[in-house]
Amino acid sequence: MAYSRAGRRVKTGSYMSDQRRPCVILHSPQLGENIGAAARVMRNFGLTDLRLVSPRDGWPNPAADTMSAGAFDAGVSVNVHETLQDALEGVVYLIAATARLRGIEKRVTDAVGAAEAAFARSAGGGKGVAAVMFGGEKAGLPNEAVALSDLLMTYPVDPDFKSLNLAQAVCVFVHEWGKLDAAENPSNFPSQSQVKPLEAQTTGEANPATRDDVFRMFEHFEFELERAGYFFPPEKTPLMKDNLRSALIRADWTEQEVQTFRGAIKALAIGRGKARVVRED
Amino acid sequence: MAYSRAGRRVKTGSYMSDQRRPCVILHSPQLGENIGAAARVMRNFGLTDLRLVSPRDGWPNPAADTMSAGAFDAGVSVNVHETLQDALEGVVYLIAATARLRGIEKRVTDAVGAAEAAFARSAGGGKGVAAVMFGGEKAGLPNEAVALSDLLMTYPVDPDFKSLNLAQAVCVFVHEWGKLDAAENPSNFPSQSQVKPLEAQTTGEANPATRDDVFRMFEHFEFELERAGYFFPPEKTPLMKDNLRSALIRADWTEQEVQTFRGAIKALAIGRGKARVVRED
Repeated sequence: MAYSRAGRRVKTGSYMSDQRRPCVILHSPQLGENIGAAARVMRNFGLTDLRLVSPRDGWPNPAADTMSAGAFDAGVSVNVHETLQDALEGVVYLIAATARLRGIEKRVTDAVGAAEAAFARSAGGGKGVAAVMFGGEKAGLPNEAVALSDLLMTYPVDPDFKSLNLAQAVCVFVHEWGKLDAAENPSNFPSQSQVKPLEAQTTGEANPATRDDVFRMFEHFEFELERAGYFFPPEKTPLMKDNLRSALIRADWTEQEVQTFRGAIKALAIGRGKARVVRED
Repeated sequence: MAYSRAGRRVKTGSYMSDQRRPCVILHSPQLGENIGAAARVMRNFGLTDLRLVSPRDGWPNPAADTMSAGAFDAGVSVNVHETLQDALEGVVYLIAATARLRGIEKRVTDAVGAAEAAFARSAGGGKGVAAVMFGGEKAGLPNEAVALSDLLMTYPVDPDFKSLNLAQAVCVFVHEWGKLDAAENPSNFPSQSQVKPLEAQTTGEANPATRDDVFRMFEHFEFELERAGYFFPPEKTPLMKDNLRSALIRADWTEQEVQTFRGAIKALAIGRGKARVVRED
C-alpha cells in the first residue's frame, strides 16, 4: 500500500507527468467509506496526494480500502497528521470548502475558480503545491482552519438541502480540476478527443417527439422490416436493430417527422403487397 | 415517502419553480447505497425525478434510505420500471453517460455540454423532459440503451483509472446542471452572490512562502503579542488569534515578505525592551 502512518509524504512513484498537482486534505473525517470514495474519485481525475488530519477511526481503515476501488494501489498516497499545521507541509495556497460563509472576510469562489487557482499554483513550476481542504461529515471545517485559508470555495447547492456527502464534495472539485488538466494536456485523455461542440440542439418551433412516439415508430419500422425478410441471418437481428435505431435516433425527431416517417413505412409495406397484417399500437 | 412501486410518476409537490428539470435514470443499479447517494446529490443541486430500471435488489431499499440523507422526504421521487422503454415516459432527449465510446456514431460531449443540452430541453417550455442515464456498477450501460440515446456524455477521467463510482458519476453531471441553474436563477442561491471573479492569483516573480514559513511567522507574532499583554481577556485569545491570522493570510505572502515581517516583529519586541526571552524556531 502507498500510505504511511508517519507525517512524511510518500513518493507516489512514476505516476504521470512532472506537473505538480494539488493535494486534498480531509480535516477530521469520520467514515472510512468517505475517505475511500474520495481517494477513488481523486485518482479518477489524476490526483494522488491525500492528507488526513486526525481521522476519527485512525488509519489504516478497512472501509476506506473497500470503497477506494484500488486507488491506494494505483498511486494515491495517504498521510495522516495530528494537526492541520503538520498536514500543510509544502503547501503554498490553501482552499477551504465550506457551505457556511460565516461572515469571514475571505475571497470566495466556486469550484471552477478554485480549480483555476489551484491549477495556476500547481502548474506554475514554483515550489510547493496548492491544497483543497474539506471538513468532517458532521461539523465541517473548524473556524481556525477556515481562518488559515487563502480562498473559500462554495457550491451552488439548494439552500434547503445543502449538505453534500464528503466524497461528493471532493468529486465536484476534482472534476473541475480534471477539466482543466484535460484541456491543458489533451494527449493524456484520448476519449476527450471525441468531445465536440454541440450544434444547436433545438428543433426550432416544432414539438419534439416523445421517446414513446419514437419507440412506436421503431417498432412499426422493425415490424415491417421483419415481414419483408430484412433481418437475416436471424442471429444478427439484435445488432441490425441497434444499428438502425442508433442511426435514426440521431435525427432528433419532431412529432410531425415521426408521423411522416410512419406514413412512409406504411406506404412501403402496402406497396410491397404485404399489408395483410395491420399493426396497431 | 415520495417513491412509488408503480411505473407512474409521483407528483413531487410544490418543490421549486415551474421550470422542468431533467430526470436521472439509473439502469440496472446494484447497490442501494449508490442509489441513495445519487438521490442525495441530485437533491443538493435541485433535481428530484429519479427513475430506476430493474434495480437488482428491488425497491424500497433500506441502504438507499440511509445514504440518501433524507433526500426522498425532501422531494426526490423514485419510480421503478422493468424496462428502459417504460422509464422513458415523457422523455424527449436522452443523454447516456459512458466511459466506453464503443465506436457508435453518436454525438459526444462532456458534462458541461450535457448539462447545457439538458438545460436547453428542460427549460425551453416545450413538452417533455431531458433524461441523463447511467449504467450499473459492474457493466455500465447495455449497448441497446446507448443506441437509443441522443447524446453520449464522457468525463475526462484518467485512462488508467477510469471507473467512477455510480453516485460520483451522477454528482459530476448534477453539479454542472446546478451551475447553469444558479447562473440562470441567481436569486435562488444567496451564497453564490459572494462568489466573485478572482483577481490574478500570482505573486509575480517572487517565490511564494510555504505554509510552514507563514505558520512560524504567526507563532512568532503571537508569541511577542502574548508577552506584550495583547491577548486580553484570556478567554478571547483564540478569537483574537483567528481574526489576526485570517486577516494576515490574505496577504498571500512571499518568502521575502515573511522575512520582512518577522524582522519587524523582532524590532518591535526589542524596542519595547521585552527581548530578554529569545524565541527560536
